[in-house]
Amino acid sequence: MPKSPAFDLSAYLATRTKLVEQALNNALPTTRTQPSVLHEAMRHSVFAGGKRLRPIITLAATEACEGDTKAALPLAAAVECVHTFSLIHDDLPCMDDDDMRRGVPTCHVVYGEANALLAGDALVALAFELVATHPGTSNHTTASMVSELAHTSGSRWLIGGQVLDLQAEGDPSKVNAVMLKKIHMSKTAALLTCSLRLGGMSANASPRELDALTEFGHATGLAFQIIDDILDATQSSEKLGKTAGKDAASGKATYPAIHGMEKSRKEAIRLTRRALDSLVIFKEKRAPLEAIAHYLLDREF
Amino acid sequence: MPKSPAFDLSAYLATRTKLVEQALNNALPTTRTQPSVLHEAMRHSVFAGGKRLRPIITLAATEACEGDTKAALPLAAAVECVHTFSLIHDDLPCMDDDDMRRGVPTCHVVYGEANALLAGDALVALAFELVATHPGTSNHTTASMVSELAHTSGSRWLIGGQVLDLQAEGDPSKVNAVMLKKIHMSKTAALLTCSLRLGGMSANASPRELDALTEFGHATGLAFQIIDDILDATQSSEKLGKTAGKDAASGKATYPAIHGMEKSRKEAIRLTRRALDSLVIFKEKRAPLEAIAHYLLDREF
Repeated sequence: MPKSPAFDLSAYLATRTKLVEQALNNALPTTRTQPSVLHEAMRHSVFAGGKRLRPIITLAATEACEGDTKAALPLAAAVECVHTFSLIHDDLPCMDDDDMRRGVPTCHVVYGEANALLAGDALVALAFELVATHPGTSNHTTASMVSELAHTSGSRWLIGGQVLDLQAEGDPSKVNAVMLKKIHMSKTAALLTCSLRLGGMSANASPRELDALTEFGHATGLAFQIIDDILDATQSSEKLGKTAGKDAASGKATYPAIHGMEKSRKEAIRLTRRALDSLVIFKEKRAPLEAIAHYLLDREF
Repeated sequence: MPKSPAFDLSAYLATRTKLVEQALNNALPTTRTQPSVLHEAMRHSVFAGGKRLRPIITLAATEACEGDTKAALPLAAAVECVHTFSLIHDDLPCMDDDDMRRGVPTCHVVYGEANALLAGDALVALAFELVATHPGTSNHTTASMVSELAHTSGSRWLIGGQVLDLQAEGDPSKVNAVMLKKIHMSKTAALLTCSLRLGGMSANASPRELDALTEFGHATGLAFQIIDDILDATQSSEKLGKTAGKDAASGKATYPAIHGMEKSRKEAIRLTRRALDSLVIFKEKRAPLEAIAHYLLDREF
């Protein structure tokens, strides 16, 4: 696949990460705000070393549509709050029961299950508070932005995907290619697409621009998850001294498990190409999104 | 205290309950929507026999401000979704660990902890989807309604109140009168006040009307919780053959425990009077709210 033209992605990610960190820091109540333990728990997970992929993609989508980065920041912070909420609840003992994430103890390990549950809940509310501060644009009301995030976070997508994933873990033999794609679309591609669309909406995107961002989100989101599946499988065989891949160990249905490694790699490349094609209408303003799509694919290849 | 003038509260509650049930039934995806188990779990708890106090109060507030009941229905359904979410999460093993509520097994007992957790999460998202469908009014944008519900549901009020309540249960001796009031305001009065304010906003309430509804909400909400505390204590001593009140058994800080029974009763009456006074500006349109305030107090007296 042809590489992205000269674009300094590292510099881009560095400046945009800083903006997102500041927005999140301003949005989250300080740990002096009562109840302290709740705000500590929220901050613990929000500032636990995430790469800020989703909020940065919101900003990149705004820029693709020639919008103002600053105006999109509350939306960027909101998608990160929803993402963090989903991680906190996902890590709870009754879900995946994970003690560590990115080398940091998970929220319930540090603050207890009840506080972690409530920290997740509070981050969702905060996300909608943030979206409500956006003034809207002529094409996109604040209400349509709220609707976008609510629909994505709800029972048909993000939360629905968690339920499907739980069912799949319970009986991986029942997961066929269609179901696996549905899980990946719901758990990963939906919030990524929402992040892009909110960035576009903040920049008063035309229907055609919003369609392009949606296409980019679906393709990148699915590619992202396929590559995650591949990494989990290949890391286990390549890195000696490490336990086998978590997915394989838990008998989880993955792209490589269902389609084979070679077909999975090809599908990730095909999807990334489709994602890149969808960006053409943004002309030179597509550079950040293009570089991010290459970066996501290159984690493996 | 003088009784409410002739107003058929039973008939009022019956018709309004029906409207709310229909709105909730329309708002919640059917159990045929995938993933079925999630939508079954959401419906199990939403239709588990609640009195619909909050959504009916939303409609009554709309009527007090001469607004259209139908327009307020999505907001009424939204507050009930948030209320149900808080009950589902509150009942989870890591929180209060309640197996039954209103004679019906709680969500996690029927559908498992993970599905109950996710059903609660999905109800919050649905609540904001519902608020986003309101077109707003000249005085109150849809964004301001979203902000109202998000702020109330967040770390400073509803969720914050849960955390304070957990801390209080852990060490009731540390709960003084100020802290107890803060817990009651956060856990009960805040969402009740929000329910009223959203109803007012839907009816394009003036600032003066919104202030009156807020005053009514604070006073009624606190009175409601004090009466709950009193009922828990008196039922245990009056109804032989029943185990002691749950609050007393768990050493929970309550109004009667801190202030004594007589002072608690007086405070509930004083607050109800204050609530009734705040309704004067609504003239004859105040009848439903007035009757509801009397009804809440009369549960005990």
